[in-house]
Amino acid sequence: MTTVAAYAAPAAKAPLERTTVERRPVGENDVLIDIKFAGICHSDIHQVREGWGKAIFPMVPGHEIAGVVAETGPGVTRFKTGDRVGVGCMVDSCRVCTNCKAGLEQYCADGPVWTYNSIGKDGEPTYGGYAQTVVVDENYVVRIPGALPLDAAAPLLCAGITTYSPLRHWAAGPGKRVAVVGLGGLGHVAVKIAHALGADVTVLSQSLRKKDDGLRLGAAHYHATSDPATFEELAGHFDLIVNTVSAPLDFAAYFSLLRTDGTMVNLGLPEEPVPVAMQALFGGRRSMSSSGIGGIAETQEMLDFCAEHGVTAEIELIRADQVNEAYERVLASDVRYRFVIDTATI
Amino acid sequence: MTTVAAYAAPAAKAPLERTTVERRPVGENDVLIDIKFAGICHSDIHQVREGWGKAIFPMVPGHEIAGVVAETGPGVTRFKTGDRVGVGCMVDSCRVCTNCKAGLEQYCADGPVWTYNSIGKDGEPTYGGYAQTVVVDENYVVRIPGALPLDAAAPLLCAGITTYSPLRHWAAGPGKRVAVVGLGGLGHVAVKIAHALGADVTVLSQSLRKKDDGLRLGAAHYHATSDPATFEELAGHFDLIVNTVSAPLDFAAYFSLLRTDGTMVNLGLPEEPVPVAMQALFGGRRSMSSSGIGGIAETQEMLDFCAEHGVTAEIELIRADQVNEAYERVLASDVRYRFVIDTATI
Repeated sequence: MTTVAAYAAPAAKAPLERTTVERRPVGENDVLIDIKFAGICHSDIHQVREGWGKAIFPMVPGHEIAGVVAETGPGVTRFKTGDRVGVGCMVDSCRVCTNCKAGLEQYCADGPVWTYNSIGKDGEPTYGGYAQTVVVDENYVVRIPGALPLDAAAPLLCAGITTYSPLRHWAAGPGKRVAVVGLGGLGHVAVKIAHALGADVTVLSQSLRKKDDGLRLGAAHYHATSDPATFEELAGHFDLIVNTVSAPLDFAAYFSLLRTDGTMVNLGLPEEPVPVAMQALFGGRRSMSSSGIGGIAETQEMLDFCAEHGVTAEIELIRADQVNEAYERVLASDVRYRFVIDTATI
Repeated sequence: MTTVAAYAAPAAKAPLERTTVERRPVGENDVLIDIKFAGICHSDIHQVREGWGKAIFPMVPGHEIAGVVAETGPGVTRFKTGDRVGVGCMVDSCRVCTNCKAGLEQYCADGPVWTYNSIGKDGEPTYGGYAQTVVVDENYVVRIPGALPLDAAAPLLCAGITTYSPLRHWAAGPGKRVAVVGLGGLGHVAVKIAHALGADVTVLSQSLRKKDDGLRLGAAHYHATSDPATFEELAGHFDLIVNTVSAPLDFAAYFSLLRTDGTMVNLGLPEEPVPVAMQALFGGRRSMSSSGIGGIAETQEMLDFCAEHGVTAEIELIRADQVNEAYERVLASDVRYRFVIDTATI
């Protein structure tokens, strides 16, 4: 075991503070990663505050991890010391269920081992990326292409794959009209990726405050959802709506923006059930779905795609001791567009 | 104009009573149909009772119409006197929008002209099938194959197409596990059609009361939803859930029965928005959708399919003066499985 410095919440809703955690010895198939950068995802805050249910404390959040391989186990074949690598939301899964075999480890029948707030196969709690190092089985590690800077690539490990996967699954591309609801951490990456895929991208945001940004990031259109005219003008317009907002919306109003057979896929998870008017799905055989991250192979595909198309997150690099303040700013939507912790400051 | 006998609700929530309505003269492309049988659909009751919003009275319900052509307009090319024909939920649509051109008249951008409780292109209210005759543009009339008896075919015009269309759209067939929720008017036809399509069919019903029927109609499995073990045993089991129940359900529980990428399609329309836990869709990229009837060409395809596979509704033939009693029995789920009015008794 190795003791490493980390930032952790000692209890639910408590501020994060500097502490230490134990990392397991490097096993046969393990990679020891010297973490360089860790993105702050809204779901870190949900979990620290137990918004999604009972959690494990102390909690070291962080599932947008970018770093460099410092050591490899004897069985490791895919990585060597010095490789630039990333770890996302999962660090293990059963590997034998239908979903795991199909490359959909995120939907593992037993539930994946999450990067933090989870119990690993060794029976110990997992601790995330707000730390100096992490030890991960090589099958759950991906390569960060040289074209991507590590700091701006870190958020791709969650925000990138969470948007890339549904955009690909629902075939965003040339000739398709895609709406991205919310221009935040997920939304701004969704805009970039959807644009890079060749779709006609519209941002639907509460106000026009970030319009210049949205257009610069790749949106062709930008509308305020606070303006009722938006819903009249865009009725029946979209093939796909990618909703990155986790607060409940007036879903019926958004469904009305879908073409026949269109889908609204929800990436944010409201803490309570949301009311859905079936009539609004009925008119046009519309669908409502939800999607979580992506598989390991697809995460690698996403990183390669982003390298090829020059897609990275827009980030604000912070010191570890700014993390609590950063959480407050995320909750106030006051970040353009992702906080990334420089883990050298832990 | 021709005056014909009909059964109508004079006002919202009022009992139906014998009356007369005017039918328009037979126009260039019109077919005058001597109605033989009219099915009673749960949605007739929703509309008579204004459960889906303000309605037009007097209302002659009935959109499961089977009859014989009595007269054709000079421009009619597809039908002749004596032909056995059916009319479903629509009697017209704009014919020029993307959906109409794609054979999805039910999702016409202007809204179709419904068979009753709607305003026709002549500006007059439409009256449905609880009547002696109806005049319909030939493009909204379908042929009932000789292999199908008119009385047991009548419900196919709504219950048949409403279940056939989503079963086809979501590719029910060999190797697919399909659940049908509710064994009523829609559900019993859904079981027959899904079985005829080659799917492995399971009925999910509140109790095992109708189990023998369900298995006889084509289900391979039958489970009671009142038994919590059902939800444990069938977790992650189905490719498609066809929900024919219009009362709100515990949707999260049903989503948990879907495989990864499975869909729950809702054919009944609850009168109020239903609560949906996004988490239950998230786990497995599941979708929730809704589907309404089908297009005209698809309705013909469905009738031909039913003729080929010997699929008809199980009916209780009633006299017109039993309609109010029949409504009460539908509401009490006391019908096996569809009431059909013998319109000779009007």
